[in-house]
Amino acid sequence: MSKQLVNIGLIGMGTVGAGVVEIFQTKYPLLEKKAGAGLRLKRICDKRFEKKQPEGIEKFSLLTTDITEVLNDRDIDIVVELIGGIEPARRIILAALDKGKHVVTANKAVLAYHGREIFETAKKCKRQVYFEASVCAGIPIIQAINEGLCVNQIDYLIAILNGTSNYVLTKMQEEKRELGEALKEAQEKGFAESAPALDLSGEDAVHKLSILSSLVFGKHVKLEEIHKEGIEMVEGLDLRFAKEEFGYVLKLLAILKTDRDSVELRVTPCFIRQDHPLAQVRNEYNAVYLRGNYVGDMMFYGKGAGSYPAASAVISDIIFLSRKVAQTIEEEIPYVQFSKNDLEMKEISSIESRYYFRFTTLDKPGVLAQIANILGVHDVSVASVSQKENIGLSEVPILMLTHKAREGNIRKALVEIDRLNVVKRKSVFYRVEDDKI
Amino acid sequence: MSKQLVNIGLIGMGTVGAGVVEIFQTKYPLLEKKAGAGLRLKRICDKRFEKKQPEGIEKFSLLTTDITEVLNDRDIDIVVELIGGIEPARRIILAALDKGKHVVTANKAVLAYHGREIFETAKKCKRQVYFEASVCAGIPIIQAINEGLCVNQIDYLIAILNGTSNYVLTKMQEEKRELGEALKEAQEKGFAESAPALDLSGEDAVHKLSILSSLVFGKHVKLEEIHKEGIEMVEGLDLRFAKEEFGYVLKLLAILKTDRDSVELRVTPCFIRQDHPLAQVRNEYNAVYLRGNYVGDMMFYGKGAGSYPAASAVISDIIFLSRKVAQTIEEEIPYVQFSKNDLEMKEISSIESRYYFRFTTLDKPGVLAQIANILGVHDVSVASVSQKENIGLSEVPILMLTHKAREGNIRKALVEIDRLNVVKRKSVFYRVEDDKI
Repeated sequence: MSKQLVNIGLIGMGTVGAGVVEIFQTKYPLLEKKAGAGLRLKRICDKRFEKKQPEGIEKFSLLTTDITEVLNDRDIDIVVELIGGIEPARRIILAALDKGKHVVTANKAVLAYHGREIFETAKKCKRQVYFEASVCAGIPIIQAINEGLCVNQIDYLIAILNGTSNYVLTKMQEEKRELGEALKEAQEKGFAESAPALDLSGEDAVHKLSILSSLVFGKHVKLEEIHKEGIEMVEGLDLRFAKEEFGYVLKLLAILKTDRDSVELRVTPCFIRQDHPLAQVRNEYNAVYLRGNYVGDMMFYGKGAGSYPAASAVISDIIFLSRKVAQTIEEEIPYVQFSKNDLEMKEISSIESRYYFRFTTLDKPGVLAQIANILGVHDVSVASVSQKENIGLSEVPILMLTHKAREGNIRKALVEIDRLNVVKRKSVFYRVEDDKI
Repeated sequence: MSKQLVNIGLIGMGTVGAGVVEIFQTKYPLLEKKAGAGLRLKRICDKRFEKKQPEGIEKFSLLTTDITEVLNDRDIDIVVELIGGIEPARRIILAALDKGKHVVTANKAVLAYHGREIFETAKKCKRQVYFEASVCAGIPIIQAINEGLCVNQIDYLIAILNGTSNYVLTKMQEEKRELGEALKEAQEKGFAESAPALDLSGEDAVHKLSILSSLVFGKHVKLEEIHKEGIEMVEGLDLRFAKEEFGYVLKLLAILKTDRDSVELRVTPCFIRQDHPLAQVRNEYNAVYLRGNYVGDMMFYGKGAGSYPAASAVISDIIFLSRKVAQTIEEEIPYVQFSKNDLEMKEISSIESRYYFRFTTLDKPGVLAQIANILGVHDVSVASVSQKENIGLSEVPILMLTHKAREGNIRKALVEIDRLNVVKRKSVFYRVEDDKI
């Protein structure tokens, strides 16, 4: 027995919601064909409707400012949550599931913080939660990892998950701007929020990495255990030096690595080789580069934000779920499956990486020896050194690239180095993500 | 009511088949978890079993050399066709559908030539045909276009779909080899067949482009109408000149473009800018670069061939279908949907592109004027000219880059130019895929 009409309730008509409504209206016949059923956007809820109602939509959908009108509508099969943030999004999603509705969400924050509660509720209620738009917007990366690549063990994934930071870093790199300037341009062009802290601090990328990691390992991730560093303190100087001296470019990378029995997850600015596929990901674009044990290296590239790219993903989720509703599939296995235990992660001090250093020292004999000595004591082996021309006063930058070293040792060495009298400023370090060396 | 055990019959245990069997055995619990049902690889058929049976497999599966033992086994729910080529693959797929079995295939040729017959039979029999491995092996591009991006109108798609040609071109470009040499190395490393005609001629890429295009437009494609040129005649000279003079690299591109009312499909060697994401796709890798009206520009990159990458895609198809079998979904809409009419395509003479020319002329005054004059008469506007140093004898190469021009005009102009007394060799031309100019 199949259901001929699937009813949808949309909560939150901001940037993404407006895109969804527009696509719904203009692509209606295609959507029905793909879903194999009639689709009706029955109710749209947004508290801003109190002040101003959008035009032309009331012909197709009931508009409301009251969330319960959506949740309590027994016709509605699928609730689309697009208000973002933690609350009331979490309560809405849980209530919708509890009332027997499937859920589509684009909300990375609520999944990152409350994924366990949400997916356990979904399982209990025998309903599905789809969330393609929550990571990389229109790039179908959730489906790829969860379905197309599902038989692969993914033991390496590095990704550019935040368009704002990538835009800022691209401008800094290519147009030799400083961060403030590049950020201002990003804001003017609409690639950055007026309050960009979530983006620049790496927090937004951490949310997305936690979602991708939970899919890769089938385990929930404790958000607060993901090591996070942002790009707020990045200086143009290091971008120029690393490019000229070592052929590296800086990206804010979300990183997942596993070896035999441990998992490393972090979001940090990293240098990568300029011929790495991720180095070509410029401006507001996102990309996920991963390695599966069967498929080998693979990359997904595209726009990671914006009304239409995100709406495209939300609509594809609606279509998937509508097919299930239309066919009244009740007992299906969950879209995503998690084990009971949370993912165990390495502490940042025990990771291994290559490192880039910039030391600012007095321009006098013996300085390099003192630094090299401290690094040696802490088991940090230097791969390459470059002393740059004097940049004014009596200070001189010394650049270094290390072989693989343990982060705990790096940090201890830097504390000691920064205590040296000849070192004039806090030393700068970046991790170098270069698996070819 | 759900079915607890899904039975699978595998036909063809070559490179991909062996990968499928191995993954099936080693990842069995994961497969069952993903499918939500027990999976049994009940029968494996390969005519080579007459001479030699693989070891250790008979414990899990019945081995046979007789295809009808698979097709007539009423337990078998899904037939996996991995023998490749047109016949008997076509007959096997049709027979399997007719006997009520779903089909998974990695066979691009049979879908390219007989897609209409196969998908119409599937629809009539209410069975599904999945074919993720047929294009780009492990990259889930079929699912992405058919599902994740389904609401998008894709009006631009350029792709590197043949790993062998890309390997050969990469070696020619980067190591300054000639084609024969690069091909020999590709064969030694296992990236090229001993008989590589299908790869180098563009035929293999045409098959894959026809499959992608049929998904993009929801229409079947007449294979013989896709314009095809291979890389057999590519000379290292042009790769060097175009890189040095204009910053271009050569790729064998599968191209799909649409404007208001016409569609251009072709596989031709093309120059692209060295900073285009596809220019970074090196060696045996494949990539699909596309533009959706909602998602914008997107790229999928990975290994396009090989036992494990293809097997990864075959297994993901098996899992999808097993879920349907386990839930006894009978009336589902077809995985891919086509209109009745075939896709209408432009003739090659009416496409527009930019062009690269290499003329080999006598080194004397007035030559350039004669050539430029003929181009002008045929409405071909020159964007850039470079006359290279004399390469010996009295011949000299003249390089040209045109603005956008109509291919019919280009061809007429070249015929006239090659008739000039001052032109000593057949002129070389390549299309330039550069949408930024």
